[in-house]
Formats: sequence, structure tokens, C-alpha cells
Amino acid sequence: MPGIQRTTEKNLMVFSGRAHPELAEEVAEILGISLVPTQAFEFANGEIYVRFEESVRGCDAFVIQSHTAPINEWIMEQLIMVDALKRASAKRITVVMPFWGYSRQDKKHRGREPISARLMADMFKTAGADRIITVDLHADQLQGFFNGPVDHLMALPILTDYIKSKYGGQPIAVVSPDAGRIKVAERWSARLGGVPLAFIHKTRRADRPNETVANRVVGDVSGRICVLTDDMIDTGGTIVQAAEALTAAGASGVIIAATHAILSDPAVDRLKNSTALEIVVTSTLPVGSEKQFDKLTILSIAPMLARAIREVFEDGSVTSMFDGHA
Amino acid sequence: MPGIQRTTEKNLMVFSGRAHPELAEEVAEILGISLVPTQAFEFANGEIYVRFEESVRGCDAFVIQSHTAPINEWIMEQLIMVDALKRASAKRITVVMPFWGYSRQDKKHRGREPISARLMADMFKTAGADRIITVDLHADQLQGFFNGPVDHLMALPILTDYIKSKYGGQPIAVVSPDAGRIKVAERWSARLGGVPLAFIHKTRRADRPNETVANRVVGDVSGRICVLTDDMIDTGGTIVQAAEALTAAGASGVIIAATHAILSDPAVDRLKNSTALEIVVTSTLPVGSEKQFDKLTILSIAPMLARAIREVFEDGSVTSMFDGHA
Amino acid sequence: MPGIQRTTEKNLMVFSGRAHPELAEEVAEILGISLVPTQAFEFANGEIYVRFEESVRGCDAFVIQSHTAPINEWIMEQLIMVDALKRASAKRITVVMPFWGYSRQDKKHRGREPISARLMADMFKTAGADRIITVDLHADQLQGFFNGPVDHLMALPILTDYIKSKYGGQPIAVVSPDAGRIKVAERWSARLGGVPLAFIHKTRRADRPNETVANRVVGDVSGRICVLTDDMIDTGGTIVQAAEALTAAGASGVIIAATHAILSDPAVDRLKNSTALEIVVTSTLPVGSEKQFDKLTILSIAPMLARAIREVFEDGSVTSMFDGHA
Amino acid sequence: MPGIQRTTEKNLMVFSGRAHPELAEEVAEILGISLVPTQAFEFANGEIYVRFEESVRGCDAFVIQSHTAPINEWIMEQLIMVDALKRASAKRITVVMPFWGYSRQDKKHRGREPISARLMADMFKTAGADRIITVDLHADQLQGFFNGPVDHLMALPILTDYIKSKYGGQPIAVVSPDAGRIKVAERWSARLGGVPLAFIHKTRRADRPNETVANRVVGDVSGRICVLTDDMIDTGGTIVQAAEALTAAGASGVIIAATHAILSDPAVDRLKNSTALEIVVTSTLPVGSEKQFDKLTILSIAPMLARAIREVFEDGSVTSMFDGHA
Amino acid sequence: MPGIQRTTEKNLMVFSGRAHPELAEEVAEILGISLVPTQAFEFANGEIYVRFEESVRGCDAFVIQSHTAPINEWIMEQLIMVDALKRASAKRITVVMPFWGYSRQDKKHRGREPISARLMADMFKTAGADRIITVDLHADQLQGFFNGPVDHLMALPILTDYIKSKYGGQPIAVVSPDAGRIKVAERWSARLGGVPLAFIHKTRRADRPNETVANRVVGDVSGRICVLTDDMIDTGGTIVQAAEALTAAGASGVIIAATHAILSDPAVDRLKNSTALEIVVTSTLPVGSEKQFDKLTILSIAPMLARAIREVFEDGSVTSMFDGHA
Amino acid sequence: MPGIQRTTEKNLMVFSGRAHPELAEEVAEILGISLVPTQAFEFANGEIYVRFEESVRGCDAFVIQSHTAPINEWIMEQLIMVDALKRASAKRITVVMPFWGYSRQDKKHRGREPISARLMADMFKTAGADRIITVDLHADQLQGFFNGPVDHLMALPILTDYIKSKYGGQPIAVVSPDAGRIKVAERWSARLGGVPLAFIHKTRRADRPNETVANRVVGDVSGRICVLTDDMIDTGGTIVQAAEALTAAGASGVIIAATHAILSDPAVDRLKNSTALEIVVTSTLPVGSEKQFDKLTILSIAPMLARAIREVFEDGSVTSMFDGHA
Repeated sequence: MPGIQRTTEKNLMVFSGRAHPELAEEVAEILGISLVPTQAFEFANGEIYVRFEESVRGCDAFVIQSHTAPINEWIMEQLIMVDALKRASAKRITVVMPFWGYSRQDKKHRGREPISARLMADMFKTAGADRIITVDLHADQLQGFFNGPVDHLMALPILTDYIKSKYGGQPIAVVSPDAGRIKVAERWSARLGGVPLAFIHKTRRADRPNETVANRVVGDVSGRICVLTDDMIDTGGTIVQAAEALTAAGASGVIIAATHAILSDPAVDRLKNSTALEIVVTSTLPVGSEKQFDKLTILSIAPMLARAIREVFEDGSVTSMFDGHA
Repeated sequence: MPGIQRTTEKNLMVFSGRAHPELAEEVAEILGISLVPTQAFEFANGEIYVRFEESVRGCDAFVIQSHTAPINEWIMEQLIMVDALKRASAKRITVVMPFWGYSRQDKKHRGREPISARLMADMFKTAGADRIITVDLHADQLQGFFNGPVDHLMALPILTDYIKSKYGGQPIAVVSPDAGRIKVAERWSARLGGVPLAFIHKTRRADRPNETVANRVVGDVSGRICVLTDDMIDTGGTIVQAAEALTAAGASGVIIAATHAILSDPAVDRLKNSTALEIVVTSTLPVGSEKQFDKLTILSIAPMLARAIREVFEDGSVTSMFDGHA
Repeated sequence: MPGIQRTTEKNLMVFSGRAHPELAEEVAEILGISLVPTQAFEFANGEIYVRFEESVRGCDAFVIQSHTAPINEWIMEQLIMVDALKRASAKRITVVMPFWGYSRQDKKHRGREPISARLMADMFKTAGADRIITVDLHADQLQGFFNGPVDHLMALPILTDYIKSKYGGQPIAVVSPDAGRIKVAERWSARLGGVPLAFIHKTRRADRPNETVANRVVGDVSGRICVLTDDMIDTGGTIVQAAEALTAAGASGVIIAATHAILSDPAVDRLKNSTALEIVVTSTLPVGSEKQFDKLTILSIAPMLARAIREVFEDGSVTSMFDGHA
Repeated sequence: MPGIQRTTEKNLMVFSGRAHPELAEEVAEILGISLVPTQAFEFANGEIYVRFEESVRGCDAFVIQSHTAPINEWIMEQLIMVDALKRASAKRITVVMPFWGYSRQDKKHRGREPISARLMADMFKTAGADRIITVDLHADQLQGFFNGPVDHLMALPILTDYIKSKYGGQPIAVVSPDAGRIKVAERWSARLGGVPLAFIHKTRRADRPNETVANRVVGDVSGRICVLTDDMIDTGGTIVQAAEALTAAGASGVIIAATHAILSDPAVDRLKNSTALEIVVTSTLPVGSEKQFDKLTILSIAPMLARAIREVFEDGSVTSMFDGHA
Repeated sequence: MPGIQRTTEKNLMVFSGRAHPELAEEVAEILGISLVPTQAFEFANGEIYVRFEESVRGCDAFVIQSHTAPINEWIMEQLIMVDALKRASAKRITVVMPFWGYSRQDKKHRGREPISARLMADMFKTAGADRIITVDLHADQLQGFFNGPVDHLMALPILTDYIKSKYGGQPIAVVSPDAGRIKVAERWSARLGGVPLAFIHKTRRADRPNETVANRVVGDVSGRICVLTDDMIDTGGTIVQAAEALTAAGASGVIIAATHAILSDPAVDRLKNSTALEIVVTSTLPVGSEKQFDKLTILSIAPMLARAIREVFEDGSVTSMFDGHA
Repeated sequence: MPGIQRTTEKNLMVFSGRAHPELAEEVAEILGISLVPTQAFEFANGEIYVRFEESVRGCDAFVIQSHTAPINEWIMEQLIMVDALKRASAKRITVVMPFWGYSRQDKKHRGREPISARLMADMFKTAGADRIITVDLHADQLQGFFNGPVDHLMALPILTDYIKSKYGGQPIAVVSPDAGRIKVAERWSARLGGVPLAFIHKTRRADRPNETVANRVVGDVSGRICVLTDDMIDTGGTIVQAAEALTAAGASGVIIAATHAILSDPAVDRLKNSTALEIVVTSTLPVGSEKQFDKLTILSIAPMLARAIREVFEDGSVTSMFDGHA
């Protein structure tokens, strides 16, 4: 007999880096499994060591890491985990990066700059990644930076469901803090039942994206709860100034909603002291207890990641999670 | 003696596909050289044949092709030219595509779409391209789609110089036909001396970018010459509706200015019959005589391409052509 | 529990470009399935848009496209379909190109030519193709142009079975229109029971393969039904002159048999008016109704493609379809 | 219905080159299967021809070849087998090279040398190999030369079990013939129950690894059975001199133990005439009958290879075969 | 000052493997240089060691090796030389293989065969080759197997000049030993002033190319000196039978002319005892003194290789050496 | 005229990351040039931004970065600099990493570990590096991890010259702290005029390389100045214990000499308080002023790096810097 026949089995395994283990644990729990036990630490000079404590041969691996500060550390750890999985014969490796590090360096704003967002994609490919799962990219074009499937999830349903249930009884307007992102606000408006749109007209310096020069509200927001939406809150300067502008323009209240809570200093102070009634974010990035405050609401992204992982594993449809838009 | 020493010479050669030979000839003339004689035709079944009639060994090749209709034909011709150059021992191959074909398919608008703009980049790399020179990308992120240097030129100086010299004496406003492109309008405003900005608020269908739903002028344009700027004019529907909206909003005149004159049917009729006083474009794409009309002004992009080619050849700086922004 | 186990399922899906949908539909019908619903059209400037209307995640995809005129259009469409499948997580992508476009540009006939047939192979690889299924290559060496499995089918059994059933009672000779392809004629002769061989001695211009200079029959054909075989009929000049030569040499009748019916102008007129009794081709390329005529017989290649697809899907043997020769 | 569903089957097939067919046959027998019938011979000018006589489509292929003299011949044959498997649609190809040819050229000892061990890894990758199984690398770093999983087996358990069962009743010392390899001796010592260690202090010429300059025993070996361990025996000069040195230092007996029996001339004569009582090797390389002699014991590596192949095929754990060390 | 400027120098260096050093020395002599001193030998187990004894940093390297028996040995040596050059910082590496080893395995004659000719191309690319120079490929399509420039030289002018000068006064016919290669004979005929053509009609077994079944002369050769041309003479069976057939058909004499003198056993005996008056070959492959005999004339290919190397080095034109055909 | 001819100029430019700018400045000064002005900082969330403030088009770039703590930060910065250089059209990019980060993770010590040293090599290749210059690799095999030239410098001459000049008058012994590295000690011994060798026999845990179990001096060191040599000092535990052991064994004094001064905590305290008379290192890694102490001598590696850069730029010989050993 010239061979041995077997039915092929596949085995979903979820791995977590050390940046945001709570998120990965929540994902695993929803999937009804445990994270693969993993040894990870730094040597004295900062080099990262990783080893999986169970056989991963032939598995369908999902490696979850949040690209939060210290961001280079965590990206490197995830790259090393992918390398270890490749060499340990994982069958397929999916990099789950809820926030794609360096996503804002997606083009040369000026000559002789890197395109670091593409470099990240290439490095994960080099390490051995077959696929990426990510949430709310800064620019949709980043999908094209990776030479392979990118499942691009949207936190929109999670955020809008929350807003609807809490503020649904009041007149709402959706406000984009930046004319350039008004299409996202349009999708918000549609999900909230066609509420009015407005946006803030401002200028940023291309090379220092945290510095805003001027703000002006375009659209009528007076007497409305304004939901100010963005993909991320980094130092919070822009969004807080936008909130002030909205308040000044007669908004009855301002709710800030964003997918990625980077919350670099001094974001927390700014947000706390802002006129915003509530800041709603998701858990794509960890928010340490020292950064949490009364007005901050963190919605879990874990159920969405878990569902996407299951669809990917079982050859289902991720697109169907978003009515065809993904 | 173990070897033969020579000083290394480099040799700039410019090649043209058949899509827009006038542009390539103009570039060559400015550089003070001739195009490399090239045999190119279709076989009976449409397969393209290309052969260079002079030795190209060791040359620094620049292959100019406009991605105009029939666009797949001309892209394929350029790919085949690159392959022939690679196999004929060109030392370095620069693809000059003044308009990057398929640049609008730069992301998955919905699930199960291709990212054709990335595919183009990869195919030119596969054929043998070392570098790309292009003008005014639909999204700057496309620079990151190519794994190598992309010199991204901007027609802005050419267009604004013309506008200034012709309409400089009158009150001007710069208008973006789309909130999402307002940053480009900001650069226009700066080049025109800080004139006011406005934009049209509209909705397009993601999968049929030529269909516009509604238009509203945001900003004060009354009594001003409105320069309506975009990267390209395809069927012209959007831009012509924007012009009507501006006229209705009290503009004293509307000038449409765009880099890429795709001018697919029925663009010419729409533009001719529009309220716009003048339509200013560049020669990145050919505009056949049957498409030309009184109000249409075509500014040559050839001097800028020639200068970029010379800077690339002589290891000068392309960035310096745009004050650091490229 | 550290993972989720599942038995791996595989799912055969067949996709069709727009070049020759009837062929793909026939293949799907034989397989007992439907083609995957696909949206495909051109934008106004000729750029192709493709989207699959069902989830294709994890599928074993077969993408059928005939490389017929407008050939660059259809090749580009197939490339874009492969890109979309790759990004939509198809598990394996097989490009089914019954006729391999640009297969005649398989070497540099003269210096500074491309090798476009290799370029096609590389571009499909770049787009994401894992494997190629094709029929009757112009030169067998093209198998080596693709870095992966190439299933090379032969229309010989289909064509010879037809000839045998229709002309089996008469004395037959197999004639090669070109000394260089006499080995194919030998295989024909064997399949037809060892009938005599002849060939036409002629010269073509290397760079204009449609122009023939002179014809001479080598071998005895007098009183025989001559089956003139070739891999393709393009403009038909060569083959029709060969038919005349055979008639002049005393053939009792001439049957032209070829796998690929390119039928570029003026092939149809030439064939209609030729001395050939019948022209037998397969459906690897579409033959529009305006090109069909009484003497033309089109045998379906669909059953053979369907069987090859099934063997590939079920890890059977394609070689066994041809007694070891493939 | 848009597709055909099937449960995925996998099929283990084992192939053998002509260098050491007995080993492959033994592996196959342990697995309970037959080797895939393969035609292989040289053409008159030495070119190797290979063809598999059964369908290999979709199989999980393991290609066994011993890199023994004529080593370039056998490496080339294995490369060609991998190419044929790739083109014949094997699903996964594992190269089983019990001894990694050129493993000693793993760095530039001096300027302008090749790193042939890396070249071998790259060539197998190029030919189509997905994975390597090998035994006792000269330097563990070679794992990193291959861009994919390397299952690195250790003959240690086989060799130490034999030594324990035969010499376990006597006082034993483990001796490294080279200070640089003392860590291997430490592992031997541990497996033999913590017996004492010693080593030979010697110098080799970097570019002629077979020439030894001087030997000195470090450690106390007097009155002990010395197990002199190395990864390979090539011409045997070093190891035989080490054995003499041990005898002179009062060893009660010397056992030479090595994984790879290269046994280039004049190894057999040296070993036969040496003071060693027994030479124990494994069957990673063939030892022709003309090279066998009374004191030589060959332990089969086949059971270990068979188990590794089965673990790889069934997604088990190779690491578990070695208590975590592999 | 931000940098150091220098004029770039280039340095041609020629390297020789050990297969046919006389040819490389002759090439170097014509170029007026010496071969780079190179240390090369086998270790006891057959592994090849190579080291260059001078700095090769930045050089334009040409590595000459004849793929003669033991062919795998010499191919491996050339691969290792290329690896060493790459790692020693050669600027460009050209592989000069006057005869491309494994060129006859350029397609799958039957299922489950390798395409070894492509594998060779890929392995040289992997090792670091930028370009190939070769002579008279078995099939021109092999140019397309390498992903880079292939300079394909033709021995035709050398061979025909010799024939013309020696036999020009007599009536000549050019004879192809195989209908499939008649196009080469046509080029011979043209170079010899339009002399008549003939060919031998025969059948070979696809998998044993040395066995011929039957021969028949097609064309009139009576009373003529027949120049029987082929690309190579391996065991000589085919060509000697063709010579007998020509003699039987009334040829006044037979001259065998071929580029590559493989001359595997029993070619020499067959040729010596054949009816051929003279056998003319080139020095692409070494012909040991034990293989030389009275009727054998070896024309040097070195001048042509030297000129091609010089043209490549100096960015001249190789195509011009062959009137556009290369 | 079909082209523009120019003599090719090359331009050496040196770039520095922020890890150890003093070293890069010293290198530049020796070369007589300035570092290219570079803007580099972190965004609030830790993402690194880099931009070169002068044109780098066509330059021969050398990018110097010390892989010191925070090591992932600095490796990422160097990768991003390489990406920016590639996209800004540098002609050739050499990565100068005096210490190769992650070099100790050069193999799988146990199953399911990464091989991070190879991953680093691949990531620099992916980013665009053409070549690496490094000093004293932990294992020479790492040269083979990079697919391109690696210039591997040795600090040996710098260190031994210093030792000779300072301690040359006393009896010296060279001591290896690890049997596995005794070959390095042999080279030291040769450079110091053939002084005696000794080494420390110890055991480390494979997965925690900083923990040493036991130490024993092998060789006679009594009454001698012992030069204890290693490639790096990380936490210093091993080397300080070795120094104690040497002192206990009667050494008249202990000098610790190492290339790479990682000096992770608590190395400084250990070394300060050790019995060693002097610790001699090079400046491959920065040693902050807080880490400097009386017994510590830092020799500059800058002259050697500068010379290697110049040899690489001018196509000289790096090997010649080390008498053929590099």
C-alpha cells in the first residue's frame, strides 16, 4: 500500500502577547477555549523571549496583540511569536492587531519619510503571517499594504448600538472632527436612523498630527446631542477642541465616540476636563486603571473579534457581519 | 592582470508606449534627446508585440505610458515593454505613469472586491520595474503599494500659476467638490495667496463612483470666481453638478481645474453645456481632437515630467521641486 | 481546552470571466453546480470592476477565462478576479486558461523582444494563482514558465474520436502544416491507427507569424482524406494554403483540425472559401455566431475541463486522462 | 448549488532517492506502507532523470535521501525529486536529509568563501520544499538557514541506550574530542546517569578540517570506559588520535560513538587499526559492505525517522520525542 | 560636508570552475586578463570547497563552467562559486554556461516528471546570478526559464564559416537530423548561400532520447556534400544513423556539425566508424584527448564568449553580433 | 540622439539612529564627513518618526545603530530608516549594527522557540538592506542568516593591541569563560604571541543564559595575568564568577576583555566589586556615564567601522583588514 490516508482535522488555537492579555482572554472565553500557555519575558538587555508550552503543529493560529505603548516592544513580540509559530509548524497564522501600529504613517507626507504602515505589513509577512484581522483602519487603503487577506472589522455597530440605547430618545447629530473623515460620519448617520451631519473644519500640520490650528462647526448642531466620532483618540487635543466648538455652537451635549483609545498624555486630563458628557471607546487597546475616569465608557471589542476568528476558522463570512461592507 | 577597469557611464533613454506618444515626444524634446525607436503593433488576435530597435543594454530606462482608454491594452503594453527592457539588460527601469490606472480601486469598498491599484503595482514590479514616477494620486497611500521608490509629482504649481496669471485680478475662492478632498483645496488656497475655501457636500455610491446623490455648497462663494479642483474628471457628472451648485450659490464664475482629463462619455457634452467658464486640465492623459472644445485648456505636464526624469537620472532631488512635499 | 477541532471540509467553486461564459456554464453544469454569481463591468474609462456575490472564504477556486479578443481586457479581468479571490481568502486558486494568451511570444525571436508568455505566468503568480489548467500549449516548454503545477490537457482524444467516427471508413493521412510540429502529427497518426504522415514544408517570418512564404507537400497524400492538424487557427493563411497544396497534391479531401479557433480576420472568409471539406475545432475560445459557417464543427472542450477540475479537486490523476502523457 | 463539498483527506507518501534505499525501505516498512515506485537513472552525460509511477496529487510527501558520496549527485537528485513533486501537485513536501550535506561550510572561515550550508537550504526551498527533517546538525544554527520548519532529531537516545545496555555495568566517562562540542558531551553524560566528562584539547586548520595538530586529555579518564562522542566520523583522523590519547591516558577501553558514518578513506583502516574497542554509528548514511568490519556497530535511525514522519503527518509533536529539546 | 563623492569604476573579472579551465583561460587571454586565482577542491566526502584568492568586491563577475560529466558536480561547483561571489560583494554576477545542463528536460514529456532545466535557472537565481550567457539552447524557450537577461549566442557563424572555407567549392545540402529542428537548418542554408535543405524523418522515444526507431531522407541529397547539423552530439546514435541514411541516399559525403560535443559513450566509436567524412564541433564542452580522433575538428567558442563578455561589460550590443537574432 | 550620457558618480553618506550617536559621529569624523541631518522623534504613543533633511537620492548609505536597550525601539528605528532610504532612492543601503540584536537566539534551544536572529536578518532585508556590517557575532553562522554580503569585523586586534601594550611585560594566560568558545581564545593566544590557554568549565541553563551552575578552571593559570575573553558582557554573572575562580586558582591578576558591553543590571556592580583588575571593552554599544567606573576601559570601535565603510564604498577589501579572516 503506497500511503496512509487520514481525514484532515483542523485545530483553532489562540495566542496572546503581553500587551493586552485581558482582551485575548475574553476572546478565548467567548470561543470556549483557553489561550495557549506561553512563556514570554525580556532578557536583561531587553531582548524578548517567547516559547509556546504546548504543541502547535498543524494548528490554525490566531495571535492577538494590541499595538499600545511601548508599541515597538509589542510589535516585536508579535513578530517573534509569528516566527516561532512558523518554525513550530503552525498550518496558518493570522495576526490579530485590533489597532494597526504605525497606521498613520501610511504615505510620505513630505519627501524622505518612511511608509511605516507598509513596513509593518511586510515584516509580518516576512515573519510568516498569512492573514491579518484588524479593526477600523485609519485609511482603508492599508488593506492593500498586506499581500494577503485582510479582514477589516468595524466597531460601528458596537458603538452605535450603545449610543442608540442610551441617547436614542433625544435629538442627535453626528459630527466628524475632520472634513476628510465625513464619509465615516455618513455611515454613523445611517446607522442612527438618518440623523443630521456636521463636521469641524480645521487644519493640522502634516508632520505633527496632534497640533490643530483652527476649528469651525459646519452644519446645524444647536439643541442636539452631538456624537463626535473618530477612529482614534491619541492626545485628545483635536477632539476636545472640537467638543468645545460644538458646545459653543449650541449643542445640548457632546458624546465623543472612537474605536481606538490610545489616550497618550495628556488625553485623560483633557477629556476629563472637557465639555463632553461621555467618551465612548472600545477595548482594542488597553486602558490602564490609572487612565480610567467617570465619563469614560469602554465597550468590549472581544465578541466581534471572537466572531471574526470563528468565521475565519470555519470558512464562514466576515463580510456578512457587516452587511457586505468588509 | 586580473581584470579590466572602466569608468562607469550611465545613459538615459526614454521609451514611449502608443497611448499618448505626443507627451513622450515633448518630454524627450525638453530633455534634448529622441525617443528610442520602438516597433509596436497588435497581432490579429490582439496580442501586443514590442521590440526596441536600438541596443538598450545598461541604460537608465524611463518608459512613459498614459493609462487611458483602452486602458487594459495600454497597461499591458507598458508591462510588456518593461519585460523586454529587463531581458535586454536595461540597468534600471522607471515606469512613468502620469495617471496610475485603477487608482480608484485602492481598497475593498465592500467584501470580495479586488484591490486592483495594488495589483498594478505588483505586476509592474514582477515585470521588472525598479521605480515609478506618477502624478497626483487619487490617494497618497498608493505610494505604499509599490515596493520601491515612487516619485509622486504634483500638478498644483502648473495649474495655480495658470489660474493666477489669468484670474489673479478677481476675488477667488477655491472649492473642493468633495469634503474628503478638502486638504488638497487647502494647498490650492495657500498657493493662491490664502483665498477662501468652500466645498460641496455630496454623497456618492461606493460601488458606482460616477453617481452623485445631492450637492450643497458649504462656505461663502458669492461674488467670487470659484476654482473647483479635483484630481480627475471622468464622466464629469459630479463636477458639473458642483459647478451648477456654485453658480446657484452666487459665484461670479466657475473654473474647473483637474490634473487628469479622463473625459469618458458624456464628460465633454456635460462640460461644454455646463455653467463653467473654463475647464483647465493637464496633459497626463491624451485628449483627442474630437474631445477638445473652446472652454477646455490643456496645460502640458511634459516639463514637469522631464525635470523629474532628469533629477532621477542625475541623482538630484525631486522633493526640491515641490518645496519638500513629495 | 486549548483549541477547537473540526474536520476540514473543502469546497469546489467555479468562477467565470466574461470572455466565454457559455464554456464555464457548461463546465459547471457537468460538475452539477452553478457558477458563483459575480458582478463584473467596466467603468467609463475602461477599468474593470469585479465582485463575487457569495462568500468564497476557504474555497478551492477555479477561474475560467478564454484569452480571446479583446485579449488584454480578458487577461486583466482574470488577473483581477484572482486578486479578489486571494484577498477574499480562497484557499487555493486555479487559473483555467484553455488557451494561454501570448503563448507564441515564448522566446526572443530577435534581440530586445519580451517573453510575454513568461510574463503572463509571472503575473498570474503575482496575483495569487496556485496552479494553471490549460489546453494544447503552443510549445510544451511553457509548462516550465509557471512556478507551480500546470495541468496540460490535450484535445487530441476529442478531435481524433470525432475524425475516426466520421471519416474512419476512408483512407486517411495526417498532415502537419509545419515540419516543426510533426511530432504532434505522429501522435495523431498513432491515435488514428497508424495512418501515413505528411507535412508541408514552408517558411514563416519570425516576427510576423501570419505570413507564409512557400508550401511544398512532403509525403504521399494522393487519394487520401488529409487531416491537417495544428494547435491553433489564427488568420488561417497558413493552413488554408496548406489545404490548397494538399488538394493540388491529389488529396481526396482535406479536413482541418485544430484545438484553438482564434479565427482572426480574415480567417472565416479564407476557411469558407478554401478547398477544405470541414474545419473541426474545440470550444477553448468562443466562436461568435457571426463567425460560424456550414463547414465549421465545434467540439466542446467542457467535458475535459470538467473532468480535470474534478481530478484536481479530489486529488485524482490528470495524467491518467491521457495515458500518462500530461 | 454553488459548489461541491468534500471532507479533506490527507495521504502520506514516502519517496526515496537512490543514495540509501535500504533506509527508506525500512522507514516505509515501519510505517506499514510501500515506497512510491519511482523511475530514476542517469542519461549518458550524467543528467539525472526521475519520474514517479503513481499519482502523487495532493499527497503529503516525504523525500528521503542520504547526502553521501557522490554527494552532489544525490543532492541534485533530491532537488529534482522535489521539483517533480511540486509540479505534480503534491500538497506538502518534506525533505528528509538525515545528514545535511555541506553542513560544515556553515560560515565563512575566511573571506571569499561560500556558505554552502545556507545555499543548500535555499535551493531546496526554491525547488519546492516546505519543511526539513534532519538529524544531529553540525551546528544548531543551521535550523535558521531554512525559511520554514526544521525538525531536528537527535540520535542521542538511540546511541546512549545501546551504550547503557552493553557497557552499563562498568565505570564510564564521556569524552568530547573537541572542547567546542563539550555541550553535546554534557547531554550524553546526563543520559548515562551523570558520568564524568572529559575532552580532548586540539587544534584543527579551519580550511582543512580533517587535519589535527595536537591532542591532550583534559579530565580524568583513567580506569574508565571512555565513550568518545562526535556528530560525524569523516576520515576518522581526529577521533582515532583522540582514542590513542585516551588509551595513553589510562582509559580501560574506548568506544567511539557518532551519528553520521561518513567514513571517507582512510577512515575504515584507521578505525580498524585503532585502539577503540567498538565504533557505534547510526544508519543516517549508508555504510557499504566493503566498509563494514567487526568492531563497527550500526544502529538503525529508521524507527526515529518513521516516528518523526508520523508525528509530522498527524500533527503530533516531534518535540515530545526528545523531552522538549527539539 | 555630508558625503564623499567618487567616480564609479567597474572591474571585469573572469572566474573558472574546474570542468573546462582551458576554455576559460582562452577567453581570459583574448580579453587580455588573467583568471582570478581560485582555490577549489573536494573534501573527502565529495563536498566542494571554493575560495577566491583576491578581493572581488564590487567586480563585474563572469563565472565560466562547462556542464560536462560529472555534470552534477560541475553545476554544484558553479552554484557554490556564485554564492561565494554574492557573499563577497561582487556587484553583478553573470553565469557563463556554454552548454545549459539539463536543457533537454525542458518540459514534462509525461506526467510526474520534473522540469529540470527550469530548476537549474531558478537555482542559479537563488545562488545570486544576475544574468546568463549561454550558447545554442536545445529549445529557445529556455531563455524564458530565467528571470533576468539571457544572452543566447549562436555558434552558427563559427561553424558555417569553417564549412564554407573548406567545402565551399562543392555542391552542398544542409540536412536536419530531425524534422522538428528544420528551422535551424534553414538558417544554415541561408548562411551557406541558399543551398538545398533536407531532413531525416525519424521517431524517438520521448523518455529515452537516445533510441531512434527509423530514418528516412526527405529531400534530394544525391551528389551533394551533406552538412548534417544538430545542437549537440550525445551518444551519437541518431546522427550516425542519419549519416548512414544520407550515404545510402547518394550523398557524395557527409559532414556532421554540432555545437555541443557531449560525446558520451559510445559516441566516439560510432563517429569514428561512421561514414561521415568529418565531424565539426565547438569547444563549449571539453573533449578529452582520449576522445579526440582524426575526423574530429574542434572550433574554439572562446572568441565568441570573450566578445559577448566584453559587450556585456561595456554595455555594448550582443544582438549586433548576430545581425539582430539574439 | 537617443540618450544622455553621464559618468556615474557615487556618494557615501552616513546616517545615525538615536541609540549611540557619539559612535556614528566619530565614524563620520574619521571619514571626514558629517552625518546626514535627520529628524527623529516619537509620537505620543511611541511610534517613531524619521525624516532625512537632505536629498539622499542615489547615495551609498551606511546606517549606524547600536542595538542597545531599549533594544526593540532602536531596531525598529533602524528598520524605519532603511525603509525611508529605500523609498527615497538610495542606491545601496548598508546596515551597520556593531552588535547584532537577538544574536543569542540563533537556534531553537528547545521546541517552539523562535530563531529571532534570523528574523532580524530577514526584516532588514525586507525593509531594503543590501548588506550588513557587524562586529564579533555570537556565532559565526549568523553570517548565513542574511541573504547578501555580511562584513564581519573582529575587535580582536584592537583589544589585543591594548592588552599587549599594557600588560605585555608580564606572564599572560588567555582564558575562555566557556569551553564552547575556546577557539576564540586560541586566536587571542596567537595574537599575544602564543601564550598559554585555559578555560572555565561550567553549565548554563539553555533557556536562562544568565544563570551559571558551576565553575572549574581547566589549564594552569597560577602566577599569570589572566585575560578572560568573551564576545559580550551582559549581566556579568558568568564572567565575574569566572574571574573569582581564576583568582582562587592562583592567577596573579584578571583582566576581563569583551567586545560588546551590554552591561545590563547588575553588571556594573558585579564588575566593580569583582576581583578583576580591569575590564576592557569596545564602544560597539553605548556605556552611559552612570555605568562607567574606574576599572572600565572603553576602546573605540569607530576607526575600524570607518575603515570598513571606506573599503566597502571604494570596493577595497575588508578581508585584508584581518589577514584573510573575515
